[in-house]
Amino acid sequence: MYKERQRILLKYIEKENLDGILISSNENIFYLTGAPLVRGSFCKILYLSKDGNAYLVVTALDYQETLDYAKEVEVVKAENGLLEEVKRFIGRRVGFEEKSMNYSMYQSLINSTELIPASNYLERMRERKDEKEVQLIMEAQKITEKALLEGLEKFSENMSEIELAAELEYFMRKFGAEGYAFDTIVASGYRSVYPHGSPIKKRIEVGENIIIDIGARLHGYCSNITRTVFFGKPKKDIVEIYEAVVNAQEAVIKAIKPGIEGKELDKIAREILREYGYDEYFIHGLGHGIGIDVHEAPFINRKCNRIVEIGNVITIEPGVYMPRVGGVRIEDLVLVTNGGCKNLTEFTKEFYEVG
Amino acid sequence: MYKERQRILLKYIEKENLDGILISSNENIFYLTGAPLVRGSFCKILYLSKDGNAYLVVTALDYQETLDYAKEVEVVKAENGLLEEVKRFIGRRVGFEEKSMNYSMYQSLINSTELIPASNYLERMRERKDEKEVQLIMEAQKITEKALLEGLEKFSENMSEIELAAELEYFMRKFGAEGYAFDTIVASGYRSVYPHGSPIKKRIEVGENIIIDIGARLHGYCSNITRTVFFGKPKKDIVEIYEAVVNAQEAVIKAIKPGIEGKELDKIAREILREYGYDEYFIHGLGHGIGIDVHEAPFINRKCNRIVEIGNVITIEPGVYMPRVGGVRIEDLVLVTNGGCKNLTEFTKEFYEVG
Repeated sequence: MYKERQRILLKYIEKENLDGILISSNENIFYLTGAPLVRGSFCKILYLSKDGNAYLVVTALDYQETLDYAKEVEVVKAENGLLEEVKRFIGRRVGFEEKSMNYSMYQSLINSTELIPASNYLERMRERKDEKEVQLIMEAQKITEKALLEGLEKFSENMSEIELAAELEYFMRKFGAEGYAFDTIVASGYRSVYPHGSPIKKRIEVGENIIIDIGARLHGYCSNITRTVFFGKPKKDIVEIYEAVVNAQEAVIKAIKPGIEGKELDKIAREILREYGYDEYFIHGLGHGIGIDVHEAPFINRKCNRIVEIGNVITIEPGVYMPRVGGVRIEDLVLVTNGGCKNLTEFTKEFYEVG
Repeated sequence: MYKERQRILLKYIEKENLDGILISSNENIFYLTGAPLVRGSFCKILYLSKDGNAYLVVTALDYQETLDYAKEVEVVKAENGLLEEVKRFIGRRVGFEEKSMNYSMYQSLINSTELIPASNYLERMRERKDEKEVQLIMEAQKITEKALLEGLEKFSENMSEIELAAELEYFMRKFGAEGYAFDTIVASGYRSVYPHGSPIKKRIEVGENIIIDIGARLHGYCSNITRTVFFGKPKKDIVEIYEAVVNAQEAVIKAIKPGIEGKELDKIAREILREYGYDEYFIHGLGHGIGIDVHEAPFINRKCNRIVEIGNVITIEPGVYMPRVGGVRIEDLVLVTNGGCKNLTEFTKEFYEVG
């Protein structure tokens, strides 16, 4: 599998007339070699040369674990800094990832090497998931849905956002999550207008809605689900928003098929929300690809000219955030299939009351 | 507080003859304005101009939350991309963060603006914690220690690494953690030779050691503690390693005082480990600063020429990872004080048996 992925990249190297390609994001290194995914840390750099040699330079700290897990690559321990070490291997005209390479790294290489942006190619490779990748995402999604169900069962009066997050995360772990796909979102009442609202000590009050956006990680792959649930009887306007968002989301899912443009899908959601008068409160894109990164290409939004393709796994997550009223977001994970899509999410979208 | 921090930065702008400074890391934006810290996402950019105006450009998605939390700054909603929007404000000679700015961002700005590296100055500012920052780190550390104690109480036979992580994280949340400082590490038995080992489904077996490295997040600030504990009676060699690591760690803590060089502290640990014959298995630096980032300056390792100063909060975490035997790491958080240091960590370093 890793060899095959490297082979595809070699074709690109040849086509672009490069001496090799330098991979600095942990996610792409994991994708190409299986080396452990240590998030938020620059501790590895991969060089794939046009003759098919692959060198994975790591710090002493990560050497043993990388040696035990990485496949189809020569693991090299860096004694004097990753970039210094990699200079021993790299050629003169080299592809690089312009988003994961920061200015410092770029500067330290540019004097001796011509650097050619190559992120897009790797992004595109990763967009189309193979069977095993889909399997892992599905398993991670199952864990997450079960955790959502069990976590909500534990809901009780006087609970804070943080306490609810505790239950949700606990069950993700219990059901086998090796980590989280992203920082858990629990945003209730007035805080539900913050799409990124992380949990705070605020108590969840009767009559409030709660946006829950969670994801697990399994063998490197992410899941993602959002539901908006209610503690006690909600206000009338939030019920109408809920209905609008569910309708918009389901209409999009019905419309997904290979070949449809991302912006077309986004438009379907916006038009339904417009009928309800909520379109101006839909303040983010419709969805995103998911895989080793929780947010990866394709990004489905109103500017997206790309078409969705068989093997894409994408989120569909319209949301309405109305000042002084509250927010609702509903998110499923779907796999684009021949002629349509398969929803990888089974959790109900019926009105859900907790407590 | 934010105004004062911005004022210090203005002095730097003046001294370096800049028109302003561009801040692209969420951590520094949080430090300078209090805007919500959304990790792993490029969703805000701050420009501080030499005349004292501060503009915080955000996407529509994060606009409301930023508006509600950010202080001493004009929050601007970006209609056409953050960088396009920020170009309306920035001057011709502008400082930037060379580590948080990737190549793509750099390229999109460099044609119209002269960009001057300025990370170090902000790093230095953040190294010296004020009273309130120390208070938050201490609170976060208390949460983490209590969670470690309660989590270990829940240890039981047949538990997996993931299940132990579940308990530890659950209690961090229960005691008020708004999030985690980093991905939890639980590495037992043969996996304890991986300093970064994240938990997997592997069962923890009788006779195994377990490295636990956890941290909570509170109002943006991180905590961090590592302990190595034992399930049942351990093998003799791991007991000796444990003793060596504790001795090395405690000797360093005794030696900390303002003015001592980082590499001197690192050497103290290495020399004690050498007496035991373990120094070659101490494969990482001794410690790091901690604050809004879990790893921030100063980085205490064998190359560190910097001195530690009053107000630094640093981890001291020697570790020995011996192939085919196992690993031990012990980590405390300390505050450098007048004439010495205050250990912010109270958890015992006595031999700790669970189960």
